[in-house]
Amino acid sequence: MPRAWHLKSRPKGLPTAENFELKEVTLPPLEDGMIRLRNRWLSVDPYMRGRMNDVKSYVPPFQLGEPMEGGAIGEVVESKADGFAPGDLVQHMAGWRDEAAIAARGANKLPSLGVEPQRFLGVLGVPGATAWFGLLDVASAKAGDVIFVSAAAGAVGSAVVQIAKAKGMTVIASAGGSEKCDYVRSLGADQVIDYKARPIHKSLAEAAPEGINVYFDNVGGDHLDAALASARNHARFAICGMIAGYNDPKPPSFRFAMRIIAARVRLQGFLITDYLGRMGEFFQQMAPLVAGEAVTSRETIVEGLEAMPDGFLGLFKGENIGKMLVKL
Amino acid sequence: MPRAWHLKSRPKGLPTAENFELKEVTLPPLEDGMIRLRNRWLSVDPYMRGRMNDVKSYVPPFQLGEPMEGGAIGEVVESKADGFAPGDLVQHMAGWRDEAAIAARGANKLPSLGVEPQRFLGVLGVPGATAWFGLLDVASAKAGDVIFVSAAAGAVGSAVVQIAKAKGMTVIASAGGSEKCDYVRSLGADQVIDYKARPIHKSLAEAAPEGINVYFDNVGGDHLDAALASARNHARFAICGMIAGYNDPKPPSFRFAMRIIAARVRLQGFLITDYLGRMGEFFQQMAPLVAGEAVTSRETIVEGLEAMPDGFLGLFKGENIGKMLVKL
Repeated sequence: MPRAWHLKSRPKGLPTAENFELKEVTLPPLEDGMIRLRNRWLSVDPYMRGRMNDVKSYVPPFQLGEPMEGGAIGEVVESKADGFAPGDLVQHMAGWRDEAAIAARGANKLPSLGVEPQRFLGVLGVPGATAWFGLLDVASAKAGDVIFVSAAAGAVGSAVVQIAKAKGMTVIASAGGSEKCDYVRSLGADQVIDYKARPIHKSLAEAAPEGINVYFDNVGGDHLDAALASARNHARFAICGMIAGYNDPKPPSFRFAMRIIAARVRLQGFLITDYLGRMGEFFQQMAPLVAGEAVTSRETIVEGLEAMPDGFLGLFKGENIGKMLVKL
Repeated sequence: MPRAWHLKSRPKGLPTAENFELKEVTLPPLEDGMIRLRNRWLSVDPYMRGRMNDVKSYVPPFQLGEPMEGGAIGEVVESKADGFAPGDLVQHMAGWRDEAAIAARGANKLPSLGVEPQRFLGVLGVPGATAWFGLLDVASAKAGDVIFVSAAAGAVGSAVVQIAKAKGMTVIASAGGSEKCDYVRSLGADQVIDYKARPIHKSLAEAAPEGINVYFDNVGGDHLDAALASARNHARFAICGMIAGYNDPKPPSFRFAMRIIAARVRLQGFLITDYLGRMGEFFQQMAPLVAGEAVTSRETIVEGLEAMPDGFLGLFKGENIGKMLVKL
């Protein structure tokens, strides 16, 4: 029987294994236009934490007692849809489960770029596109800029570091702990800050004595405050994530809020969903960087559907280097 | 003897009369290219609070024991500069004093728009231009938008309300106390919130059940947080001032910071100094609105140089309706 992770209860603060339940599911009958899939790779992403709350947001909340959803790579095992045949690999949103039967219009066949399929959940998928459009479009980053990126050992941050270097920027990156910092350094970051070693304000001020032009924010909280303190005039901030606050009931405070005015900072929040219509442009420009190894990627893999909540919870404990994936 | 207000000591928190000292000054000899002025009107503005601190900011701090500066309207009494003659009225930055001798290049002759001269410190001066460019340029506000503006009974806010109405926007405005709220209502605001009556979050959520497209921020703190809570998708915030925080050592906290991402909010700080090159454009478009009384203005006037610190301190006690001015 196919199985899927269900939301058993809503977390307060940091989620625990008790919030999830693995249960058997019955797939709907395969009608015209549908495909049946066996999932190969499942994605766990920080944004999913928000879907565990019962609040209106940019994606609807997971429903109590219902199967969860998320990005996945699956193999078509049966098709009643034109253009899809058994053996095709597709990217789709019916994750958190081993098998699925879905409308084919919700699935994208993987482009033939000669890379491993799980890359389409990482550097050539949503995290990579988030890095690309956030840095180049939202923050208008360009050659010569000094950029600061937080959570730089993560799926999005590690792509930001490498895209920025490929485009001729100076990169200051933060990560937690020496292993992650070593990894970020290996990606080409000019300066790497271990935010666990000392207050981020001090480290950033020293790393960027003349300030930063761009901040790519994955963390929020004190990282965002430090970036405001170090903002050069007309700095642009792409606000992508605030993982520091996802499980913290205390609202973030900003000692350097007034810098928004004094330095004329632009803070622009964004969602990758607004850029899905430009994925073709992204593939066209990112694929050569990946093929030429200007942009590499690393994965932290947990094995088996049973381990999926552990992988997800690991995101908030900083257990992943690069993209966190579940391999089935 | 000419007299000028000097910075006697730097305030911690709310300034007091003890921080200021009125002393006689000797004017420099009038050399070629200079004019001697008798000031008629002096401006006190919230931003001056920042100059009382000894911190690097967008304008240099006032120096301890030295005369203070600020916007003023003066009458030329002696001129060694081409194009300036006794009797000319000029706008300049040698305020906080009764007489001055300055380089004529630091003075602007008032345009002949048939309005009272003190308007060039208000609706046709820096506050009016701040409202104009902040609303229309920084926040990209346009007809049909729902805009929220805080401190709407102040010099900048009252201009924002009226410009927005003249341009076909729906205006929600906040002010403190019933007298100010009545004034803001008289300016044409569609809904007026008394932020002292109840929490601003609640009032704004009720006033804008479908959210706001634009926020013009003069206050920061809980007003900014409430605007984030009520932000529609792709809302634009012009961050002009944060008077709530100027005297408060506690950093502002934002319960709704995550809305920046979920609603893709753009927060853009700005300084009017970046727009001084476009003052001609401003006069051209604002003057007809003022002449036709689409944009009116009100002043709170304190009389005499001795009373100037009282007028300045009154800004932080909410004592002014419209532009706070000192008349000499």
